[in-house]
Amino acid sequence: MVRIVDVRERTVSLRSEIQNAWISFQEMDTSLVAVISDVVRGGTPVVGYGFGSNGRYSQGGLLRNRFFPRLLAADPADYAAGDDLTIDPERAWSIVMRNEKPGGHGERSVAVGVLDMALWDLAAKLQGVPLVRMLSDRYGDGRPDDSVFVYAAGGYYSPGRPIADLQDEMRQYLDAGYTHVKLKIGLGSLADDMRRIEAVIAVVGAADHVAVDANARFDVATALAYAVAMEPLGLWWYEEPVDPLDYEGLRQVREAYGGRVATGENLFSVTAWIPLATSSRSIPR
Amino acid sequence: MVRIVDVRERTVSLRSEIQNAWISFQEMDTSLVAVISDVVRGGTPVVGYGFGSNGRYSQGGLLRNRFFPRLLAADPADYAAGDDLTIDPERAWSIVMRNEKPGGHGERSVAVGVLDMALWDLAAKLQGVPLVRMLSDRYGDGRPDDSVFVYAAGGYYSPGRPIADLQDEMRQYLDAGYTHVKLKIGLGSLADDMRRIEAVIAVVGAADHVAVDANARFDVATALAYAVAMEPLGLWWYEEPVDPLDYEGLRQVREAYGGRVATGENLFSVTAWIPLATSSRSIPR
Repeated sequence: MVRIVDVRERTVSLRSEIQNAWISFQEMDTSLVAVISDVVRGGTPVVGYGFGSNGRYSQGGLLRNRFFPRLLAADPADYAAGDDLTIDPERAWSIVMRNEKPGGHGERSVAVGVLDMALWDLAAKLQGVPLVRMLSDRYGDGRPDDSVFVYAAGGYYSPGRPIADLQDEMRQYLDAGYTHVKLKIGLGSLADDMRRIEAVIAVVGAADHVAVDANARFDVATALAYAVAMEPLGLWWYEEPVDPLDYEGLRQVREAYGGRVATGENLFSVTAWIPLATSSRSIPR
Repeated sequence: MVRIVDVRERTVSLRSEIQNAWISFQEMDTSLVAVISDVVRGGTPVVGYGFGSNGRYSQGGLLRNRFFPRLLAADPADYAAGDDLTIDPERAWSIVMRNEKPGGHGERSVAVGVLDMALWDLAAKLQGVPLVRMLSDRYGDGRPDDSVFVYAAGGYYSPGRPIADLQDEMRQYLDAGYTHVKLKIGLGSLADDMRRIEAVIAVVGAADHVAVDANARFDVATALAYAVAMEPLGLWWYEEPVDPLDYEGLRQVREAYGGRVATGENLFSVTAWIPLATSSRSIPR
């Protein structure tokens, strides 16, 4: 039976001069997590790794105060997989979330998420299969996709940035093989943002390959003004026009804007999830 | 102009053997916060204090990593009140929440809440008025209530606890002057809980002075079974029957149960708040 002998967190800076419409990344950081097992292969322990995303900061306090101690205090039988050769990340998750009140899934889900990623990485390594294979066998049809669609999310603001520099960034994405991009809007004026969006479309060559993200900056009136201005462009999507919890505002934007409206990244309070598309490969279409 | 010269957090244990239907309090702790100003009176600095509630743990990590540094790095002019004799807690809150993404208000609101309490305490002390007076002048009609209704929330589970012990606890509340009580349900069987509820009613003397709290333990079917069993009792209210984010489940319970259903304590995701009553003094009626 596999035992988790140590769990470690390291906070790393993601500091940069970029900003979106809502936040600056000057003080941004995130957590790296290592889950260390007692299984030794080739002289080194098998370790699962996880890392947080950009935007909600490191979570070392929550991890060290609550979630690591629960995992380390648990009986390995309580997170063992059926065959005892690996761990069961879902059982480990239940241990980590013991004595946590339901609801209020904010920072906690960021902390538990980075740990969860490390647990899955460890489970797959112990099993000796790629994680995509383990997930497909467990939750899918056993035939994992051999490719995944990704797009380049960039186009941040930085002080005094000329439009030509934004266009250069987008050219680099195209050169790297990306076909679709996203840029930030909402920090400047509507007129400035329209020039930025049109400049990006000119580089990418197709408006429906360009999404925009306001990072919840707008009030409803401003969001609607952008909707009216942008709709003729035929953009890929218009993301987070207003506060993610302003459901009424989102409804108004959704009804006013003929294109796609996206939100959800900062919604931690839904019990059912409506995916954008049934397969990741169908997203660009 | 007042300067905040230091902010300190201390984690204190709230460990006890009690448990509600969802969590044990064996590892419970909370944060105490002190906000220290550069104003000295009678040889000691004026300090604002705040403390967290029971149930969502201490928040020293978030406070020290993000919220304290922002406050301490700020220009005192940015949190000064108009007359420079005290601080403006709303302006201080805006500093603390800089570069925080909207949405996902979980632990973050617990951390900022305890700091916010200390900031308001400091503001009132610097102004030399009770906080109730400052709040009434600022947000109310300048005539603060001279009394506030409170009820005794208890009736927790503990291992092997006899019903007579539960009744003794309720008698102590009545002896202390409380007229209304709440007890925990949902950890035992429905039959056991009905005996506990009826035993508490027998002590309190009026079912509509007794509320019950399931702490989001039930699935919808169980919540409905409790609703049917409890409705004839005419209880004060039935709290958190299901997961706070299970809006559809709450609707079903609300429609099935003739009495009052309460929730919201673990909802961090509403933009508008519908108060139970327009004045705290009207709640028991």
